[in-house]
Amino acid sequence: MSTISDYRTYTLVSTVERVRKLSDSIEVTWADNRVSRFHNLWLRDNCPCSECNYSVTKEQVFQIADVPRNLQAETARPNPAGGLKLVWDDAHVSDFSPEWLRAHAYDDASLQERQARKAKTRPWLANLTLPIFQYDEIMSDDEALLAWLTHLRDVGLTQVQGVPQQAGSIKPLANRISFIRESNFGVLFDVRSKADADSNAYTSFNLPLHTDLPTRELQPGVQFLHCLLNDANGGNSSFVDGFSIAHALREEHAEAFELLTNVPVEFRNKSRTSDYRCVAPVIALNAMGEIAEVRMANFLRAPFEMPEAVMKPFYFAYRRFIELTRESHFQFSKRLEAGQMWAFDNRRVMHARDAFDPATGDRHFQGCYLDRDELLSRIYVLERSV
Amino acid sequence: MSTISDYRTYTLVSTVERVRKLSDSIEVTWADNRVSRFHNLWLRDNCPCSECNYSVTKEQVFQIADVPRNLQAETARPNPAGGLKLVWDDAHVSDFSPEWLRAHAYDDASLQERQARKAKTRPWLANLTLPIFQYDEIMSDDEALLAWLTHLRDVGLTQVQGVPQQAGSIKPLANRISFIRESNFGVLFDVRSKADADSNAYTSFNLPLHTDLPTRELQPGVQFLHCLLNDANGGNSSFVDGFSIAHALREEHAEAFELLTNVPVEFRNKSRTSDYRCVAPVIALNAMGEIAEVRMANFLRAPFEMPEAVMKPFYFAYRRFIELTRESHFQFSKRLEAGQMWAFDNRRVMHARDAFDPATGDRHFQGCYLDRDELLSRIYVLERSV
Repeated sequence: MSTISDYRTYTLVSTVERVRKLSDSIEVTWADNRVSRFHNLWLRDNCPCSECNYSVTKEQVFQIADVPRNLQAETARPNPAGGLKLVWDDAHVSDFSPEWLRAHAYDDASLQERQARKAKTRPWLANLTLPIFQYDEIMSDDEALLAWLTHLRDVGLTQVQGVPQQAGSIKPLANRISFIRESNFGVLFDVRSKADADSNAYTSFNLPLHTDLPTRELQPGVQFLHCLLNDANGGNSSFVDGFSIAHALREEHAEAFELLTNVPVEFRNKSRTSDYRCVAPVIALNAMGEIAEVRMANFLRAPFEMPEAVMKPFYFAYRRFIELTRESHFQFSKRLEAGQMWAFDNRRVMHARDAFDPATGDRHFQGCYLDRDELLSRIYVLERSV
Repeated sequence: MSTISDYRTYTLVSTVERVRKLSDSIEVTWADNRVSRFHNLWLRDNCPCSECNYSVTKEQVFQIADVPRNLQAETARPNPAGGLKLVWDDAHVSDFSPEWLRAHAYDDASLQERQARKAKTRPWLANLTLPIFQYDEIMSDDEALLAWLTHLRDVGLTQVQGVPQQAGSIKPLANRISFIRESNFGVLFDVRSKADADSNAYTSFNLPLHTDLPTRELQPGVQFLHCLLNDANGGNSSFVDGFSIAHALREEHAEAFELLTNVPVEFRNKSRTSDYRCVAPVIALNAMGEIAEVRMANFLRAPFEMPEAVMKPFYFAYRRFIELTRESHFQFSKRLEAGQMWAFDNRRVMHARDAFDPATGDRHFQGCYLDRDELLSRIYVLERSV
C-alpha cells in the first residue's frame, strides 16, 4: 500500500473497525465510534495505487469518467493496518491507509473538525501590538521565517527590522518566500516624488487609506515597503484593518454593507502606456459569507455606473466606509525609519501616507508585491518539516 | 474647462438643453430628448477641475467624504459648449463637457446602450475557423497586433505562424502585449518529457482537457505554447471551448450546472518545493450571472470535501462535465508544427495533448503565461490610437 497522492503525512487517529456496503457507498465505523460514509465513486476516484497515479509527479492518471457511474465493490474489508481495502467489480483493487482515509473523511463531524482547525484572521484596531521580525533571522532560519509568514497571513501587518539600507535588498527577502509579482510599475518600484509621476504614489501628496492595484482582477496579496531614506518632514505611515472596517459597517448599517458587497465599481490605472480597469465590489465575501477582501483606492476609482435608484444609497455606503477609515480608533500609525520594512496583506490592510515636504529632506521607499498563493505555498512547505 | 480624468476621447453625441434642480440631483434634458439624472454627490465626485485632480497623474485628489452628504448646487446651467456648469453651495465650480457627461450618464437608456457595446465572447464547436496570425506582422504593425489580441479576447483560441524556431522567441512576442506572468514553473516553461517531472505535463502521457494552474486563485488568462520540435509520433493538440461545455451542461442538467458553479473543489500543485492549493468552483459566473470562467484539471484535483448528501449529485455533475469535453462535437484538434504557436484564453479554453512516443523523435514546446489584465490594458491603449 502506498499513499502517493501527497507530500503531507497524516497521523493515526483511529482504525477501521466495521465496514458495511450500502447501495452506492461504504459505511465505515471507526474504533473511536465515528461513522464515515464514503461513496463508491469517491473511493474509486481517490485510489492511491500506482496505476491510478504517477509516482514521480504524484498526479492522477485515472479519471473518474473512465468507470461506470454505478460502480460497485465486490468486497470491502478492513485491511491489516486498520485501513480499508476494496475490490471493485472490474477487479481493480483500492487499498487505503487508516491515516489518509480518516484525514479525508467527509461525515459531518470530520468536516466540522477540519473547519475548526483552519487558520483564523485576527481583526485589530489602533492598539495593535505590531509583530516585529529581524531580517537576519528570517534570512537564515526557517522557523523564524515561518513565524513571520504566519503573522503576515493571520494579522496582516508586520514589520521587518535590520534590512540592509541598499536598493534591491527586498529582492532576496522576497525570494525567501518565492518569486516577485511584476506589475506595470516594475518588479521593484521606487516610491519617491518625481516630476513625471504616473501615480499619486510618486508625488509628495498625502495618500488616503487604500489597497494597491485594486485595478487588477487579483490585487497583490502581499506588499513590501522598505525604507531606504526618510529625512523629509511628514510622510508617516498609517494602517487600518479593512476587515475591522467592514465588520463595523455591517454592525452599523447592514444595507450599506450589502451594497458594498453587491454593487461592483470600476477602478482604473491609466497612463500613456497602460490602461487597467477592474470592476469589482469594495468588499468581497468568500463562499461561507465571511469578509474575505477589501478593494479601495479613491484616487483610482472611475465614475460610478449603476442604476439611478442605487446611486444615492451607494454614495451613502461609500462615504461611510471612507469616514470609518478616518476614525483614529481604527488607525495604527508609525513612522518607518531607514532599514525597516512594512510587510502587509494588501487585500485586507489599507495603508496611507501623510503628505511630506521634499524640500526638507529625501524620502525613498522601495516596494514589491507577491501573491497570496506564493505566501501560502511557502507556509505549507515549511509546515511539512515542523 | 479641462477633462483631465482620462486618456480617452469622447465624441459629441448631444448637448444639454434644459437643466432642472431636484432635491438631491440635477435633471438634464439633452437636445436628442434623452433625460439623464445626475446626483449632486456624483457630480461633485467627478468634478474635472485641476484642484480636484492632479493633472500629471490624472488621479483624483479630492475625496467625496470631504464634503457634506447633503451638498447642494447654488446654480446649475448649460455651459457654452453644451455641457453642464455647477456652482456648489461652498462656491466650488464644476464644469463638465457634453462629450464626457453623456458618455458617463447613468439613466437606463444610457446604461443599456453601453452594455450593448461591450465585447461579446463567441462560443465555438469542433468546426471553429481558426484565427491565424503572422509573427512578422504582429511584431511590426500595431493594427495586426490589435486584430490578434481582439480575437484572443473574443474567440479565445488563435494560432501564430512564422515564430522563429529558437528557444526564447515567445518572450519578445509576449512583450508586445506586456510583461510575462511568472509561476513556480518559471518565466518560460519547457514542455518535454523528463525523468524528474514535477507535473504530468512534463511526461509523455496524454493530458486530458484542462486549464493550466487551476491551483492558483487567478488562473493565467493567456497561455502561449510554441512548438520548437514535434518529431515524435503522437502528441496532437486538442481544444474545447469551456463556455460551450458549460452552456451545454446548463441546457441538459440545470442542477448539475448549479452544483459546478456553487460547490467549490480543491486543486493542488505539489512538489518538493511548493504546495499550491486553491478552492474554487469548476464554473464561475460573473455579477450578471454569465459564464465567466472554467477551472478544470483532473490530475491536479484534491479529494472532494463536501457534505455526504452533496457527494453523489456532485460526482454526477463532475463526470458529466468531463464526458462532454470528450465528445468530438466540441473538440477542435490540430497538430502543431515547428514555428507555430497556440495563444489561448486559459480561463475559458481547455487544452489537451495526446500521448506521444519519445522513442520516435523529439518533442519540445515552450510556453508562458500572461494575465487578462495585461491583455485588456494593451487592447485599450491600442484602441486609443485607432
